[in-house]
Amino acid sequence: MNPSPIQRHVESPRYAEWVVHAGVARWVEVANDSSTDSADQIRQILHQIDARLESFGIARANLLEVLIYLASLEDVAVLNQAWDAWVDPAHPPCRACVAVQLQGQLKAEFILRAAVTTG
Amino acid sequence: MNPSPIQRHVESPRYAEWVVHAGVARWVEVANDSSTDSADQIRQILHQIDARLESFGIARANLLEVLIYLASLEDVAVLNQAWDAWVDPAHPPCRACVAVQLQGQLKAEFILRAAVTTG
Amino acid sequence: MNPSPIQRHVESPRYAEWVVHAGVARWVEVANDSSTDSADQIRQILHQIDARLESFGIARANLLEVLIYLASLEDVAVLNQAWDAWVDPAHPPCRACVAVQLQGQLKAEFILRAAVTTG
Repeated sequence: MNPSPIQRHVESPRYAEWVVHAGVARWVEVANDSSTDSADQIRQILHQIDARLESFGIARANLLEVLIYLASLEDVAVLNQAWDAWVDPAHPPCRACVAVQLQGQLKAEFILRAAVTTG
Repeated sequence: MNPSPIQRHVESPRYAEWVVHAGVARWVEVANDSSTDSADQIRQILHQIDARLESFGIARANLLEVLIYLASLEDVAVLNQAWDAWVDPAHPPCRACVAVQLQGQLKAEFILRAAVTTG
Repeated sequence: MNPSPIQRHVESPRYAEWVVHAGVARWVEVANDSSTDSADQIRQILHQIDARLESFGIARANLLEVLIYLASLEDVAVLNQAWDAWVDPAHPPCRACVAVQLQGQLKAEFILRAAVTTG
Protein backbone atom coordinates (compact mmCIF):
# COMPACT_ATOMS: atom_id res chain seq x y z
CA MET A 1 0.00 0.00 0.00
CA ASN A 2 1.31 3.41 -0.84
CA PRO A 3 1.28 5.58 2.27
CA SER A 4 0.67 8.70 0.15
CA PRO A 5 -1.20 9.52 -3.05
CA ILE A 6 1.49 8.42 -5.49
CA GLN A 7 0.77 6.74 -8.79
CA ARG A 8 3.52 4.92 -10.60
CA HIS A 9 4.14 2.30 -13.24
CA VAL A 10 6.75 -0.32 -12.50
CA GLU A 11 8.08 -2.80 -15.04
CA SER A 12 11.40 -3.50 -13.33
CA PRO A 13 11.96 -3.36 -9.55
CA ARG A 14 14.93 -1.04 -10.08
CA TYR A 15 12.99 2.08 -11.03
CA ALA A 16 9.55 3.31 -11.98
CA GLU A 17 8.71 4.02 -15.60
CA TRP A 18 6.90 7.09 -14.30
CA VAL A 19 5.70 8.55 -11.02
CA VAL A 20 2.80 10.97 -10.59
CA HIS A 21 2.36 12.99 -7.40
CA ALA A 22 0.63 16.28 -6.64
CA GLY A 23 -0.25 16.83 -10.28
CA VAL A 24 3.30 16.37 -11.55
CA ALA A 25 4.46 13.40 -13.65
CA ARG A 26 8.17 12.57 -13.48
CA TRP A 27 10.00 10.20 -15.75
CA VAL A 28 13.24 9.46 -17.59
CA GLU A 29 13.60 8.58 -21.26
CA VAL A 30 16.44 6.88 -23.07
CA ALA A 31 16.14 5.33 -26.52
CA ASN A 32 14.57 1.88 -26.46
CA ASP A 33 17.18 0.87 -29.06
CA SER A 34 20.52 2.35 -28.07
CA SER A 35 22.44 0.67 -30.89
CA THR A 36 21.72 3.58 -33.23
CA ASP A 37 23.34 6.99 -33.70
CA SER A 38 22.51 10.12 -31.78
CA ALA A 39 20.02 11.49 -34.31
CA ASP A 40 18.07 8.26 -34.24
CA GLN A 41 18.21 7.96 -30.45
CA ILE A 42 16.86 11.50 -30.09
CA ARG A 43 14.12 10.74 -32.61
CA GLN A 44 13.21 7.64 -30.60
CA ILE A 45 13.14 9.60 -27.35
CA LEU A 46 10.81 12.25 -28.77
CA HIS A 47 8.49 9.52 -30.04
CA GLN A 48 8.61 7.79 -26.67
CA ILE A 49 7.76 11.08 -24.94
CA ASP A 50 4.76 11.48 -27.23
CA ALA A 51 3.58 7.98 -26.34
CA ARG A 52 4.01 8.71 -22.65
CA LEU A 53 2.16 12.02 -22.89
CA GLU A 54 -0.65 10.27 -24.77
CA SER A 55 -0.85 7.64 -22.05
CA PHE A 56 -1.30 10.47 -19.54
CA GLY A 57 -3.90 12.10 -21.79
CA ILE A 58 -1.91 15.32 -22.05
CA ALA A 59 -0.20 17.36 -24.76
CA ARG A 60 3.37 18.55 -25.27
CA ALA A 61 2.23 21.88 -23.83
CA ASN A 62 1.97 20.17 -20.44
CA LEU A 63 5.72 19.61 -20.22
CA LEU A 64 7.12 21.72 -17.39
CA GLU A 65 10.83 21.09 -17.69
CA VAL A 66 13.15 18.85 -19.66
CA LEU A 67 16.73 18.26 -18.56
CA ILE A 68 18.72 16.83 -21.43
CA TYR A 69 21.96 14.92 -20.98
CA LEU A 70 23.93 14.32 -24.15
CA ALA A 71 26.97 12.07 -24.45
CA SER A 72 28.60 14.76 -26.61
CA LEU A 73 28.04 18.47 -27.14
CA GLU A 74 28.65 17.78 -30.82
CA ASP A 75 25.06 16.52 -30.87
CA VAL A 76 23.49 19.80 -29.75
CA ALA A 77 22.77 20.83 -33.35
CA VAL A 78 21.14 17.48 -34.09
CA LEU A 79 19.13 17.74 -30.89
CA ASN A 80 17.97 21.28 -31.61
CA GLN A 81 16.87 20.42 -35.14
CA ALA A 82 14.72 17.54 -33.91
CA TRP A 83 13.54 19.44 -30.82
CA ASP A 84 12.51 22.59 -32.69
CA ALA A 85 10.38 20.55 -35.08
CA TRP A 86 8.80 18.71 -32.17
CA VAL A 87 8.22 21.10 -29.29
CA ASP A 88 5.00 23.11 -28.94
CA PRO A 89 6.48 26.49 -29.94
CA ALA A 90 3.89 28.51 -28.05
CA HIS A 91 4.12 26.38 -24.90
CA PRO A 92 7.64 25.01 -24.58
CA PRO A 93 9.01 23.70 -21.28
CA CYS A 94 12.08 24.98 -19.49
CA ARG A 95 15.07 23.19 -20.94
CA ALA A 96 18.69 22.62 -19.97
CA CYS A 97 21.17 20.66 -22.05
CA VAL A 98 24.62 19.61 -20.89
CA ALA A 99 27.01 16.78 -21.73
CA VAL A 100 27.89 14.02 -19.28
CA GLN A 101 28.98 10.39 -19.44
CA LEU A 102 26.02 8.14 -20.19
CA GLN A 103 25.69 4.41 -19.62
CA GLY A 104 26.36 1.90 -22.37
CA GLN A 105 25.75 3.18 -25.89
CA LEU A 106 23.32 5.88 -24.84
CA LYS A 107 23.74 9.14 -26.73
CA ALA A 108 21.00 11.05 -24.89
CA GLU A 109 18.99 10.84 -21.69
CA PHE A 110 16.01 13.09 -20.91
CA ILE A 111 14.61 13.82 -17.43
CA LEU A 112 11.07 15.12 -17.67
CA ARG A 113 8.33 16.67 -15.57
CA ALA A 114 4.84 17.36 -16.86
CA ALA A 115 1.60 18.67 -15.42
CA VAL A 116 -1.15 16.08 -15.22
CA THR A 117 -4.70 16.51 -14.06
CA THR A 118 -4.69 13.59 -11.65
CA GLY A 119 -2.21 12.28 -9.12
CA MET B 1 -4.92 27.12 -24.79
CA ASN B 2 -3.08 25.46 -21.97
CA PRO B 3 -4.98 22.34 -20.91
CA SER B 4 -3.78 22.78 -17.31
CA PRO B 5 -2.99 25.71 -15.00
CA ILE B 6 0.51 26.41 -16.23
CA GLN B 7 2.00 29.88 -16.49
CA ARG B 8 5.09 30.44 -18.56
CA HIS B 9 7.06 33.13 -20.32
CA VAL B 10 8.31 32.37 -23.81
CA GLU B 11 10.77 34.51 -25.73
CA SER B 12 12.07 31.81 -28.05
CA PRO B 13 10.02 28.81 -29.22
CA ARG B 14 12.79 26.46 -28.08
CA TYR B 15 12.25 26.78 -24.35
CA ALA B 16 10.38 28.77 -21.73
CA GLU B 17 12.18 31.45 -19.74
CA TRP B 18 10.23 30.15 -16.76
CA VAL B 19 7.32 27.87 -16.00
CA VAL B 20 5.08 28.08 -12.95
CA HIS B 21 2.83 25.19 -11.95
CA ALA B 22 1.31 24.13 -8.63
CA GLY B 23 3.06 26.90 -6.76
CA VAL B 24 6.52 26.02 -8.06
CA ALA B 25 8.53 28.16 -10.47
CA ARG B 26 11.12 26.38 -12.59
CA TRP B 27 13.79 28.01 -14.68
CA VAL B 28 17.36 27.82 -15.94
CA GLU B 29 19.96 30.60 -15.78
CA VAL B 30 23.13 31.05 -17.77
CA ALA B 31 25.03 34.32 -18.02
CA ASN B 32 23.51 36.72 -20.54
CA ASP B 33 27.07 37.53 -21.59
CA SER B 34 29.07 34.33 -21.77
CA SER B 35 32.22 35.98 -23.13
CA THR B 36 33.45 36.68 -19.60
CA ASP B 37 35.29 34.56 -17.02
CA SER B 38 33.66 32.25 -14.53
CA ALA B 39 33.58 34.77 -11.67
CA ASP B 40 31.77 37.28 -13.84
CA GLN B 41 29.39 34.71 -15.28
CA ILE B 42 28.44 33.58 -11.76
CA ARG B 43 27.97 37.21 -10.72
CA GLN B 44 25.69 37.74 -13.71
CA ILE B 45 23.68 34.63 -12.92
CA LEU B 46 23.09 35.69 -9.32
CA HIS B 47 21.94 39.12 -10.54
CA GLN B 48 19.68 37.48 -13.10
CA ILE B 49 18.18 35.26 -10.40
CA ASP B 50 17.47 38.34 -8.29
CA ALA B 51 15.70 39.96 -11.23
CA ARG B 52 13.67 36.82 -11.82
CA LEU B 53 12.73 36.52 -8.15
CA GLU B 54 11.70 40.17 -8.14
CA SER B 55 9.53 39.60 -11.21
CA PHE B 56 7.81 36.81 -9.27
CA GLY B 57 7.48 39.07 -6.24
CA ILE B 58 9.41 36.69 -4.02
CA ALA B 59 12.65 36.70 -2.02
CA ARG B 60 15.76 34.52 -2.11
CA ALA B 61 14.24 32.64 0.82
CA ASN B 62 11.69 31.20 -1.60
CA LEU B 63 14.30 29.23 -3.49
CA LEU B 64 13.68 25.51 -2.96
CA GLU B 65 16.62 23.95 -4.76
CA VAL B 66 19.45 25.05 -7.00
CA LEU B 67 21.38 22.56 -9.12
CA ILE B 68 24.63 24.10 -10.27
CA TYR B 69 26.60 22.85 -13.24
CA LEU B 70 30.10 24.24 -13.55
CA ALA B 71 32.38 23.78 -16.54
CA SER B 72 35.25 23.16 -14.12
CA LEU B 73 35.50 22.14 -10.47
CA GLU B 74 38.31 24.68 -10.22
CA ASP B 75 35.54 27.28 -10.03
CA VAL B 76 33.91 25.88 -6.89
CA ALA B 77 35.81 28.32 -4.66
CA VAL B 78 34.79 31.27 -6.83
CA LEU B 79 31.21 30.04 -6.81
CA ASN B 80 31.11 29.58 -3.05
CA GLN B 81 32.52 33.05 -2.39
CA ALA B 82 29.83 34.68 -4.53
CA TRP B 83 27.10 32.32 -3.33
CA ASP B 84 27.83 32.76 0.38
CA ALA B 85 27.62 36.54 0.04
CA TRP B 86 24.36 36.23 -1.88
CA VAL B 87 22.25 33.45 -0.40
CA ASP B 88 19.77 34.08 2.44
CA PRO B 89 21.84 32.41 5.19
CA ALA B 90 18.82 31.62 7.36
CA HIS B 91 16.75 30.27 4.46
CA PRO B 92 19.06 28.72 1.87
CA PRO B 93 17.81 26.27 -0.75
CA CYS B 94 19.06 22.74 -1.23
CA ARG B 95 22.10 22.88 -3.47
CA ALA B 96 24.13 20.47 -5.55
CA CYS B 97 27.19 21.42 -7.55
CA VAL B 98 28.94 19.18 -10.06
CA ALA B 99 31.04 19.72 -13.18
CA VAL B 100 29.84 18.78 -16.67
CA GLN B 101 30.46 19.94 -20.21
CA LEU B 102 28.53 23.13 -20.95
CA GLN B 103 27.60 24.62 -24.30
CA GLY B 104 29.69 27.32 -25.95
CA GLN B 105 31.65 29.52 -23.56
CA LEU B 106 29.37 28.89 -20.61
CA LYS B 107 31.20 28.49 -17.31
CA ALA B 108 28.10 27.87 -15.19
CA GLU B 109 24.47 26.86 -15.59
CA PHE B 110 21.92 26.95 -12.76
CA ILE B 111 18.66 24.97 -12.63
CA LEU B 112 16.27 26.52 -10.13
CA ARG B 113 12.97 25.87 -8.40
CA ALA B 114 11.25 28.39 -6.15
CA ALA B 115 7.99 28.60 -4.26
CA VAL B 116 5.56 31.17 -5.64
CA THR B 117 2.18 32.15 -4.33
CA THR B 118 0.36 31.79 -7.65
CA GLY B 119 0.41 29.22 -10.44
CA MET C 1 9.90 34.50 8.69
CA ASN C 2 9.37 32.42 5.61
CA PRO C 3 7.11 34.31 3.17
CA SER C 4 5.64 31.04 1.93
CA PRO C 5 4.87 27.65 3.48
CA ILE C 6 8.37 26.23 3.23
CA GLN C 7 9.95 23.99 5.83
CA ARG C 8 13.67 23.48 5.83
CA HIS C 9 16.53 22.38 8.03
CA VAL C 10 19.69 24.45 7.92
CA GLU C 11 22.99 23.45 9.51
CA SER C 12 25.24 25.57 7.34
CA PRO C 13 24.22 28.89 5.77
CA ARG C 14 25.35 27.62 2.35
CA TYR C 15 22.50 25.18 1.73
CA ALA C 16 19.58 23.50 3.40
CA GLU C 17 19.85 19.90 4.53
CA TRP C 18 16.33 19.50 3.20
CA VAL C 19 13.44 21.63 2.01
CA VAL C 20 9.77 20.67 2.09
CA HIS C 21 7.18 22.53 0.04
CA ALA C 22 3.77 21.55 -1.33
CA GLY C 23 4.11 18.00 -0.04
CA VAL C 24 7.48 17.39 -1.69
CA ALA C 25 10.76 16.98 0.22
CA ARG C 26 13.93 17.83 -1.68
CA TRP C 27 17.44 17.05 -0.56
CA VAL C 28 20.94 16.03 -1.65
CA GLU C 29 23.01 13.22 -0.18
CA VAL C 30 26.74 12.64 -0.32
CA ALA C 31 28.60 10.26 1.96
CA ASN C 32 29.33 11.76 5.37
CA ASP C 33 32.76 10.14 5.13
CA SER C 34 34.10 10.62 1.63
CA SER C 35 37.49 9.06 2.37
CA THR C 36 36.16 5.59 1.51
CA ASP C 37 35.66 3.75 -1.77
CA SER C 38 32.61 3.97 -3.99
CA ALA C 39 30.89 0.88 -2.56
CA ASP C 40 31.19 2.26 0.94
CA GLN C 41 30.11 5.76 -0.05
CA ILE C 42 27.01 4.35 -1.75
CA ARG C 43 26.29 2.23 1.33
CA GLN C 44 26.59 5.35 3.49
CA ILE C 45 24.29 7.32 1.22
CA LEU C 46 21.57 4.66 1.32
CA HIS C 47 21.81 4.58 5.12
CA GLN C 48 21.66 8.38 5.24
CA ILE C 49 18.57 8.34 3.01
CA ASP C 50 16.92 5.86 5.38
CA ALA C 51 17.65 8.15 8.30
CA ARG C 52 16.23 11.13 6.43
CA LEU C 53 13.10 9.23 5.43
CA GLU C 54 12.64 8.12 9.02
CA SER C 55 12.98 11.72 10.20
CA PHE C 56 10.18 12.61 7.77
CA GLY C 57 8.13 9.66 9.01
CA ILE C 58 7.93 8.13 5.54
CA ALA C 59 9.04 4.94 3.80
CA ARG C 60 11.25 4.24 0.79
CA ALA C 61 8.01 3.90 -1.20
CA ASN C 62 7.57 7.67 -0.85
CA LEU C 63 10.60 8.43 -2.99
CA LEU C 64 9.47 10.10 -6.21
CA GLU C 65 12.72 10.43 -8.12
CA VAL C 66 16.39 9.92 -7.51
CA LEU C 67 19.01 11.46 -9.77
CA ILE C 68 22.35 9.74 -9.23
CA TYR C 69 25.66 11.29 -10.16
CA LEU C 70 28.61 8.92 -10.09
CA ALA C 71 32.25 9.93 -10.43
CA SER C 72 32.76 6.95 -12.72
CA LEU C 73 30.46 4.73 -14.79
CA GLU C 74 32.62 1.84 -13.63
CA ASP C 75 30.64 2.06 -10.39
CA VAL C 76 27.24 1.43 -11.96
CA ALA C 77 27.42 -2.29 -11.15
CA VAL C 78 28.34 -1.56 -7.53
CA LEU C 79 25.52 0.99 -7.34
CA ASN C 80 22.94 -1.36 -8.81
CA GLN C 81 23.88 -4.19 -6.45
CA ALA C 82 23.41 -1.96 -3.41
CA TRP C 83 20.36 -0.19 -4.87
CA ASP C 84 18.52 -3.38 -5.83
CA ALA C 85 18.92 -4.75 -2.30
CA TRP C 86 17.69 -1.47 -0.85
CA VAL C 87 14.89 -0.05 -3.00
CA ASP C 88 11.24 -0.94 -2.38
CA PRO C 89 10.84 -3.24 -5.39
CA ALA C 90 7.09 -2.72 -5.67
CA HIS C 91 7.32 1.07 -5.27
CA PRO C 92 10.62 2.29 -6.72
CA PRO C 93 11.19 5.92 -7.67
CA CYS C 94 12.13 7.17 -11.11
CA ARG C 95 15.88 6.97 -11.41
CA ALA C 96 18.56 8.39 -13.66
CA CYS C 97 22.27 7.66 -13.31
CA VAL C 98 25.03 9.46 -15.20
CA ALA C 99 28.70 10.20 -14.54
CA VAL C 100 30.00 13.72 -13.92
CA GLN C 101 32.90 15.31 -12.05
CA LEU C 102 32.20 15.44 -8.32
CA GLN C 103 33.82 17.61 -5.68
CA GLY C 104 36.70 16.35 -3.55
CA GLN C 105 36.79 12.62 -3.02
CA LEU C 106 33.09 12.10 -3.61
CA LYS C 107 32.27 8.99 -5.61
CA ALA C 108 28.50 9.52 -5.68
CA GLU C 109 25.96 12.28 -5.15
CA PHE C 110 22.20 11.68 -5.00
CA ILE C 111 19.50 14.31 -5.62
CA LEU C 112 16.21 13.19 -4.13
CA ARG C 113 12.54 14.11 -4.03
CA ALA C 114 9.98 12.36 -1.83
CA ALA C 115 6.31 12.77 -1.04
CA VAL C 116 5.62 13.89 2.52
CA THR C 117 2.31 14.41 4.20
CA THR C 118 3.06 17.90 5.50
CA GLY C 119 4.70 20.95 4.04
